[in-house]
Amino acid sequence: MGKRNLYLKTTPVEEAKALYLDALKKIWEPEYETIPVIEACRRVTRHAVYAKNSSPLYNASAMDGIAVISARTGGACETKPVRLQEGEDYVVVDTGDPVHHPYDAVIMAEDLLETDREDQVDIIASAAAWQHVRPVGEDIVAGEMILPSCHRIRPIDVGVLLSAGILEIEVVKQPKVTIFPTGTEIIEPGDAITEGSIIESNTRMFEQMVLEQGGLAERRSILEDDCEKIRDEVKKAVAVSDMVLINAGSSAGRDDYTVHVLRELGEVLIHGVAIKPGKPVILAVVDKKPVIGLPGYPVSAYIAFENFVAPVLAMMGQLPVRVDYEVEAVISRRLVSSLKHKEYVRVKAGVVGDRMVAAPLARGAGAAMSLVRADGFCVIDQNCEGVEAGEKVKISLYRDPEEIAHTVVVTGSHDLILDVAADLMPLMHSGMHLSSTHVGSMGGLMALKRGEAHMAPIHLLDEGDGSYNDSYVKRLFQEPVAIVTGVQRIQGIMVKKGNPLGIHGIEDLKACRFVNRQRGAGTRLLLDYQMKKSGILPEMIIGYDREASTHMAVAALVASDSADAGMGILSAARSMELDFIPVGEEWYEFAIPEAFFELPHVQAFLDVLKSRRFAEEVTGLGGYGMEKTGEIRWIR
Amino acid sequence: MGKRNLYLKTTPVEEAKALYLDALKKIWEPEYETIPVIEACRRVTRHAVYAKNSSPLYNASAMDGIAVISARTGGACETKPVRLQEGEDYVVVDTGDPVHHPYDAVIMAEDLLETDREDQVDIIASAAAWQHVRPVGEDIVAGEMILPSCHRIRPIDVGVLLSAGILEIEVVKQPKVTIFPTGTEIIEPGDAITEGSIIESNTRMFEQMVLEQGGLAERRSILEDDCEKIRDEVKKAVAVSDMVLINAGSSAGRDDYTVHVLRELGEVLIHGVAIKPGKPVILAVVDKKPVIGLPGYPVSAYIAFENFVAPVLAMMGQLPVRVDYEVEAVISRRLVSSLKHKEYVRVKAGVVGDRMVAAPLARGAGAAMSLVRADGFCVIDQNCEGVEAGEKVKISLYRDPEEIAHTVVVTGSHDLILDVAADLMPLMHSGMHLSSTHVGSMGGLMALKRGEAHMAPIHLLDEGDGSYNDSYVKRLFQEPVAIVTGVQRIQGIMVKKGNPLGIHGIEDLKACRFVNRQRGAGTRLLLDYQMKKSGILPEMIIGYDREASTHMAVAALVASDSADAGMGILSAARSMELDFIPVGEEWYEFAIPEAFFELPHVQAFLDVLKSRRFAEEVTGLGGYGMEKTGEIRWIR
Repeated sequence: MGKRNLYLKTTPVEEAKALYLDALKKIWEPEYETIPVIEACRRVTRHAVYAKNSSPLYNASAMDGIAVISARTGGACETKPVRLQEGEDYVVVDTGDPVHHPYDAVIMAEDLLETDREDQVDIIASAAAWQHVRPVGEDIVAGEMILPSCHRIRPIDVGVLLSAGILEIEVVKQPKVTIFPTGTEIIEPGDAITEGSIIESNTRMFEQMVLEQGGLAERRSILEDDCEKIRDEVKKAVAVSDMVLINAGSSAGRDDYTVHVLRELGEVLIHGVAIKPGKPVILAVVDKKPVIGLPGYPVSAYIAFENFVAPVLAMMGQLPVRVDYEVEAVISRRLVSSLKHKEYVRVKAGVVGDRMVAAPLARGAGAAMSLVRADGFCVIDQNCEGVEAGEKVKISLYRDPEEIAHTVVVTGSHDLILDVAADLMPLMHSGMHLSSTHVGSMGGLMALKRGEAHMAPIHLLDEGDGSYNDSYVKRLFQEPVAIVTGVQRIQGIMVKKGNPLGIHGIEDLKACRFVNRQRGAGTRLLLDYQMKKSGILPEMIIGYDREASTHMAVAALVASDSADAGMGILSAARSMELDFIPVGEEWYEFAIPEAFFELPHVQAFLDVLKSRRFAEEVTGLGGYGMEKTGEIRWIR
Repeated sequence: MGKRNLYLKTTPVEEAKALYLDALKKIWEPEYETIPVIEACRRVTRHAVYAKNSSPLYNASAMDGIAVISARTGGACETKPVRLQEGEDYVVVDTGDPVHHPYDAVIMAEDLLETDREDQVDIIASAAAWQHVRPVGEDIVAGEMILPSCHRIRPIDVGVLLSAGILEIEVVKQPKVTIFPTGTEIIEPGDAITEGSIIESNTRMFEQMVLEQGGLAERRSILEDDCEKIRDEVKKAVAVSDMVLINAGSSAGRDDYTVHVLRELGEVLIHGVAIKPGKPVILAVVDKKPVIGLPGYPVSAYIAFENFVAPVLAMMGQLPVRVDYEVEAVISRRLVSSLKHKEYVRVKAGVVGDRMVAAPLARGAGAAMSLVRADGFCVIDQNCEGVEAGEKVKISLYRDPEEIAHTVVVTGSHDLILDVAADLMPLMHSGMHLSSTHVGSMGGLMALKRGEAHMAPIHLLDEGDGSYNDSYVKRLFQEPVAIVTGVQRIQGIMVKKGNPLGIHGIEDLKACRFVNRQRGAGTRLLLDYQMKKSGILPEMIIGYDREASTHMAVAALVASDSADAGMGILSAARSMELDFIPVGEEWYEFAIPEAFFELPHVQAFLDVLKSRRFAEEVTGLGGYGMEKTGEIRWIR
């Protein structure tokens, strides 16, 4: 079995973080540097900064006009203007010009009457002393505190510092972070792919996350799983960096050397944290510097970085840790979580009616796309076993709430045309978005009924009359619901190129390894209908219980020889270069309850659906009939 | 009088913006470039991006353990374990290793029982087909849309793009902006200051604002007010940039050439916008490129940039314009605004009781510090004449609402020790802040009474018994109020170094140019008391009606010979190197109503007040007595 560290201790997140930060605070010496103010934007002040000179530097005219001696303007009125002589009673000033003794007020150009002489003007109102004069120091007084300590410098601060005569400023040094990708199975992006290889992408993500948290990142090339080499490189890096990150090898597998290396070089304070995804984290100190081992799964890597690396960088950079924007939302699906850890569940968010609805995305540690798609996340605390569907939760949003409020929430069956529509929405209707989660046709209708979506894409065959969709909607809804035609599409059996097993229909599925769609998917209903017609029972098909949740996922399993056949649409088969045996045509349509039909973003979607641009892109995918796209019928 | 363009037309903000953006959209050709994904963070995608390969690339083990043939594990249970033979029934796998045919499931290492042989294990539960196996494409399926068009790339996107086999990506080119500071009176920061010179700082602020909005900035050196030179330089810059900014010369003064130059070179669409501050904006097009003339006052410059330059940059970079975070707040002072313009009023914000309170800051176009101090701003629309004190308004926040919720709102008399306390608060109590606005002692008590502040710093002399503060609080409040002693300080007359006019007391003020404090200021009450004792009437003092709102502002006016004398505290006189004639000692204290006394941030302030660090810094300023600092007495 080889040597394994089977039992990582799992420390609760907050405890691990506090323990590590406390340890670092005791040994970390902050460093500072003096730099030009014009390069100091986004840096953090060491001390409070005091103005060197006042601004304005002198009494200055606040207007374009003339500077006058106020005492000589007394008594002027419309019926009895006072004439002033240039050089004697006034001087011409533009905004910002100094106002000298004996002048003590400014009259605006607009309030002057021309006379027949260039060097004389009439005024029809007296000037109060100091009117329209910006007194010296009105904005900034020399000696005044301009910026506090630990302040992150903004563009406006740069301007004010320069105005106050400050050219250089002492700021916190940016922590320098060295990042090591490790693992013999890891290849650089662009290297030849062989089976077993994993494209290294985490450290490139870390590089950017370090930059965003105010640090400097240096990503080294891949280290293979060689204990000695890793030790040497880490030791050298610690000497020239403020922090070292190692990815991955932080777990307890046979080739996970990181923890051994760090125990040799320094002290491992934490190995394993009660967080999901993200558990196999190593928090260590080597030569008074933080060294962190991060897990290899992309989502684990991301969440572990946010929870442990970001706070250390914030401490070193004396920056506040970014606070997420929290809102209350109704969770659309039951979430069961273990008491063993705190779990970060990525969610899609949308405003349906007057509620914010959060739909959980894939929860796996490897599901990096769940982070790309997420609008935010919801934390299930370690002492909580989960939440019920419909329960209120707090979610932290990545996306602007305004954007979320103008997003069509789509829940139901997946098709590639949804991605095309989502892409076109903001391009064709500025500020409007579409966000979809994929739970199958029946799942979509149920979400619609619970008020968790604006629209459900469905393709549900009525076994009675061979019709699509209407009977299901009629049965479920009391209120009027519009069914908008999306596309007609061809369903069929996807098999490997050349059809090596000679599959020509539903009957042939008995002789192969099949992969099915999840319960409630329209494609599965179609399969069941065809099986029933042919007298085939589920137990006669190997893999009937093996489920994938999209057409593309089924196609990928067939393409990789992980299955011999699966049901799906033509466009999915084409994109994976599979052979395709048509089984039937079906209607992929959108159910929209009356209450949401007139929403501007829903109308924007209908506009996209009927656009030439959409038609062109969908036609390019192949396998779709678009004669009736955009047609509306009401089910009442 | 020289040549002036007296009457700028003032177009409403939204109209000017729409007109300009529409004109640009017709002539602007977006540009794109293909760059490596590892450099693409924060850039914007041109097209939707589709995955080149799936991830995982193959069926992969999701656990450390053994890959088995599920069919051979049937029937295993605690009482009847099944023994498996390495190489025949299983192979050892780590997380991420490929799972090959005929293996179709993984059993976790934790669930294996050791046997007496290294190459055999026992299992006590059967394995379901495909358990703990990540199917090919589970995360990303080749051909799937990963990112939409016009998407700003984040760190996680970089990771996913690389995992999906994408090394290069087409993105929107960053707009290149050339920035010209102009003006004969303008000097570079660090140049020798003479009277009439203005330190150039706006374009350094613009540089950083361009960067933050995703552009590239090139700031040129200062151009003097020479029409021909400006024309030549702008023409050359337009040829090599995507946008040109000119600062300032956008007004209608004698030396404001910008508009003439731009009329010669191209088309001026807008000159003058109904916005305050920020009115003298020029929106022009030269050779199909936007050229914008921005006003010279720092606040005008900032607001004009945000309103007109930022949206053009967003259009060019195909980025969303940053949306401010809006909240409802109660305005603490009456704001009168003209129907002639839309006004941006900078505010300090704080949570007092259950309300967000917004206190307006200095409204001048030159008040750059108002932008530095601001927590946000409130817009008074053009069709609105203002808002009453206590009215609800929408404010856009710059600062994190969480931070605002933990801020002690201080309104009242100003003293330098408030800045020291504000600086120390977050250093000594993480996450706690202090924010102060200066309206004088009486203004502070009135704000406290209206529930708009947690605390009022006051120094109010009771003319009856010579005592400080208590009688005022007793008279105004029914509820218990704590008075916490701040410092004892020396008030006196500030005069120029060497005391050239020989001022030795209140009587001598009759013979000089005085500058007073605003009504309600404790210092003014002290002066009035002393004047009354000496039988001096206000009309006997030149400048009794001239008001400045802080000790430091008074000191600056005296230091610059704009006044001969003013009343203030010793530390202000010292910081401006003025002579000081003591008039009396007074108590600068903090009134805190019982309802706020126990708030954690108020308690944090009291802790700072009593700290050694605070004592050291205040002692350094000079002129303060700290024997009783932090002592509390309750007025009931």
